[in-house]
Amino acid sequence: MVTEIEEKVIEAKKASITLASVSTDIKNRALEEMANALNMNRQAILSANMRDLEAAEKALRKGELTQAMVERLKVSDSKIDGMIAGIRDVIKLEDPVGKTLSALELDNGLELYQVSCPIGLIGVIFESRPDVVPQIMSLCLKSGNSTVFKGGSEAINSNRTIFNVLLDAIENVEGIPKGAFHLMETREEVMDILSMDSYIDLLIPRGSNSFVKFIKSNTKISVLGHADGICHVYVDEDADLSKAYTVCFDAKVQYAAVCNAMETLLVHEKVAEKFLPKMAQMLDAAGVELRCDKKSFEILENIDFIKKLIRAVEEDWSTEYNDLILSIKVVSSIEEAIDHINTYGSHHTDSIITENQKKKKKFAELVDSSSVMINASTRFADGFRYGKGAEVGISTNKIHARGPVGMEGLMIYKYVLIGNGDKVSDYVGPSAKKFSHRKLDKLLYDVIREK
Amino acid sequence: MVTEIEEKVIEAKKASITLASVSTDIKNRALEEMANALNMNRQAILSANMRDLEAAEKALRKGELTQAMVERLKVSDSKIDGMIAGIRDVIKLEDPVGKTLSALELDNGLELYQVSCPIGLIGVIFESRPDVVPQIMSLCLKSGNSTVFKGGSEAINSNRTIFNVLLDAIENVEGIPKGAFHLMETREEVMDILSMDSYIDLLIPRGSNSFVKFIKSNTKISVLGHADGICHVYVDEDADLSKAYTVCFDAKVQYAAVCNAMETLLVHEKVAEKFLPKMAQMLDAAGVELRCDKKSFEILENIDFIKKLIRAVEEDWSTEYNDLILSIKVVSSIEEAIDHINTYGSHHTDSIITENQKKKKKFAELVDSSSVMINASTRFADGFRYGKGAEVGISTNKIHARGPVGMEGLMIYKYVLIGNGDKVSDYVGPSAKKFSHRKLDKLLYDVIREK
Repeated sequence: MVTEIEEKVIEAKKASITLASVSTDIKNRALEEMANALNMNRQAILSANMRDLEAAEKALRKGELTQAMVERLKVSDSKIDGMIAGIRDVIKLEDPVGKTLSALELDNGLELYQVSCPIGLIGVIFESRPDVVPQIMSLCLKSGNSTVFKGGSEAINSNRTIFNVLLDAIENVEGIPKGAFHLMETREEVMDILSMDSYIDLLIPRGSNSFVKFIKSNTKISVLGHADGICHVYVDEDADLSKAYTVCFDAKVQYAAVCNAMETLLVHEKVAEKFLPKMAQMLDAAGVELRCDKKSFEILENIDFIKKLIRAVEEDWSTEYNDLILSIKVVSSIEEAIDHINTYGSHHTDSIITENQKKKKKFAELVDSSSVMINASTRFADGFRYGKGAEVGISTNKIHARGPVGMEGLMIYKYVLIGNGDKVSDYVGPSAKKFSHRKLDKLLYDVIREK
Repeated sequence: MVTEIEEKVIEAKKASITLASVSTDIKNRALEEMANALNMNRQAILSANMRDLEAAEKALRKGELTQAMVERLKVSDSKIDGMIAGIRDVIKLEDPVGKTLSALELDNGLELYQVSCPIGLIGVIFESRPDVVPQIMSLCLKSGNSTVFKGGSEAINSNRTIFNVLLDAIENVEGIPKGAFHLMETREEVMDILSMDSYIDLLIPRGSNSFVKFIKSNTKISVLGHADGICHVYVDEDADLSKAYTVCFDAKVQYAAVCNAMETLLVHEKVAEKFLPKMAQMLDAAGVELRCDKKSFEILENIDFIKKLIRAVEEDWSTEYNDLILSIKVVSSIEEAIDHINTYGSHHTDSIITENQKKKKKFAELVDSSSVMINASTRFADGFRYGKGAEVGISTNKIHARGPVGMEGLMIYKYVLIGNGDKVSDYVGPSAKKFSHRKLDKLLYDVIREK
C-alpha cells in the first residue's frame, strides 16, 4: 500500500526528472516570482509566525522549548527582507546544471562527455528557523532538484504559510513541473522520510547536534551535514604570539554558540608560560570559563584576577560547549597537537598559529578536518565567507562534499557517450581496435544541446 | 571492549592519516615492490589457489557453489601476469593527492585553497576473484587510502597468500605506515565491518547482485557500487536501422553475463514492423530467448524460424537476466520509452538509436542513468573503455561518484585557509571589511608545500 506521504515523495521524484532539464531563464523567473511573493505576503507570514510565537512562549514557560529556539523561530520584516535578498542572490549564481566536466574521444567519432546534473530528490528536515524553506527551496530549484521539507511542529504555521506562498509563486511559472516541492507536517512523517531511501537521494538536516545525530542514526539515506563542531586552535612554539592572541580571541569570543567556534586551545609547552597568562586574561575579561589540564592550570592558578578557572576532565576534550567555555591543554610537540585534534575533534575546522613553513605544511596535511586554518580564525569556515554565495550546510562527511557546501553539493554528473552505431566487439580480441582516449577540443554534445 | 577486528580497523584508520601524506615516489616504489613480489611468489600463490579450487570442486558437486564462481576463483600464471600489469598501470597514473582544485583570495593576504586528499579508510568486501586484492590495494595505496579487505571463504587460501605477499612487499618500503592494510577472514567479520561506520568511510562491494544488495541493506556506511544492471536500448522512429542492428546485437550478445548488457529492447511502433523481424532473427541465431510484449509478439509470432519466443510478463521489465534472454516492448513515443527506462531500469546505462538531434538531447537529459549512450552500445560503460586506467567499480549512486569510477572515486578534498592572524570580527558589523573573493593566480600554498 502506498501511503499519502509516499505518494508525495514519488510525485516529487517523478517531477525531479523534468526539473533537471528546465532552462536557466525559467528557473530564474520562478525565483523572481518567489521573491516577489514573499514581499507581497508579508502580513500573512508575520501573522502566521505570531501564532507560532504565542504557542512557543507557552512552551517556553513550561520548559518545553529553550529561549534560543524561540529566538530562531521569530520572523520579522527585516528577516523577510533577508529571505528575499537570499533568493535574489541565488538568481545571480551561475546555473550549475549541464556543465561539461570532461570530454574525451574514445575513438574517431565516439565521444564521451561527463555532464553535471541535479542529484534528484533532496529531503530537508529542520527545527525552528522558518527561513530554511526559502533558502533551501531557492538553491534546490536553481540546481534542478526536487525537495521534500519537514519542519518542526513549533513553526508549523510559519512554515506552511511561507511554503504555500512560494509554491503558488512557482506553480504559475510555465515550465516548472507540478509536484516538485512538498512540505510534510506531522511528526510521524519524519520517520517516513528517513525510511524512503529508494526515492530520496540526499538528506539535509538543519538543527541542533542531537537532532542531526538522531537523523544520522535513523536513516540509510546519505546525510549532508555535521553533528559536532569541536574546533581547535594550536599555538605552536614558532607562533607569532600577537597573531595567536587575535585568532584565539576571535575563534572563542566573536560568536560562541556556533559550530566553528574554538572549543579547545592547545599550546606548545615552550610558549605556554609566556602566552597563556595574557590570553587567559583576555578571555576571562570576555566572560570565558577556562577548563585547564594540569600544566596550564599550574601556569594560570596563581593569577588571581582570573574569575573562572577550573581543572578539565577527560570529557572536556570531546565536548562542544557552544558557549563561553574553553578547554586548554599544553602539548609537547606539533605531533601531539595533531594527534589530539584527530582523536578528540569532530573533523570540522582546526587552526595552527605558527611562522614555521614546515609545520604549516605538516598541520595542513595531517589534520583530518574539512577546514584547516593557518594563522586564521576557525570562524572563517562558512559558505558565505568562502565565497559560495549561499550555503547548503557544513559537511564533515568524507565523501561527496566536505566543509562549507554551496550549490555544488546538490550536483552530480552523468556520462553521455555519442557514437555512430559503435559496438564493443570491435575493441575485443586479436584484431581489436585501440581506444584513442584523446581530450576533445570541439564538443559534439554542445551542438546537440543547442537544438 | 575493543574487539580484535576493531583494533585492526582503528589501526588502519590511524595509519590512513600518515598514508595521506606519503610522497608519490615512495608510493610508486611500494607499488613496484608489490608487482615484483607477485612475480617472485607465483608458485606459492598457485598452490594456495589449488587448495581453494579443490575445496570448491567439492562444493560444486554438493551444489554449494556455481560453476561461474569456481571459474572466477581460478588463478593462473596469465592471471598473475594480469595482476602485475594492473599494478604497473597504477604506477603510471597521476598521483591524485594534493591537487589544488580551487584557489580563492578572501581578502588581501587571506587565501583559501581546496586541496584533494584521500577519503581515509576504505572497506572492500568481495566474493571469489582473488585478483580484487592487488587491484584495489594498488588503487588505494596510490590514492593514499587505508583498506580493510574481507574476501569470501571459498578463496581464503588464495586471498591470504596474495595479501601477505603484497603486505610483506610494502612493509619493507620506508615511509609506508604500518597497519594501513588488513585482511579479515571469518564470516562474522563481515557484519563487524558493516557496523563500523565511525571508522570506515566508504565500502566497495565486489560480487553478485544479491551480495551487493545484502551489503547495502546492512550498513550505514556509504556504498560505492551498483546492485542491478537493467540496461535498455531504445530504437527510435528516426533511427538509422543499420546502427540499431549493430548496437542491439552487441549490447545483448557480445557478453551477456555483465551488468552493462541490454536486458530490454524498446522499439518505436513506427519502425517496429520493419526493424523487429531481422533483429529477432539475428538474436535468435545467437541463441537469445525473446520475451515479447503483445505488439512485438504479434509482429514476431508468425516468423516460424525463431526458436525461443514467449510472451513477457510484468516481472520481465524489472529483471536482470545476465544471460541470453531479452525482453522486447513496442512503445508509441520517446516519452513512453524514457518513462519505461526511469521506472523499470536500474539507472545504470541506457542507449537511444536515433538520427534526430532533438531526441538525442531529450533522451540524454531525461534518462536518469549514470551513462546515456547515443547510437552506441551499452557495453561501452566501463572504466577501462572510459579511459580511467583502472576501475574501482560502476556506481549507480546519485552522490559522490556515478558511472564507471576510477581513482577519483577514492578522493575527497579539504579546505586550507592561509592568513596572517585574521579574525572574523573585522568582517562583521557596520564598518565591516569586504571579502574580495578573487580567483588567485599565484598560489601561496604551493610555496608552503615545497618546504
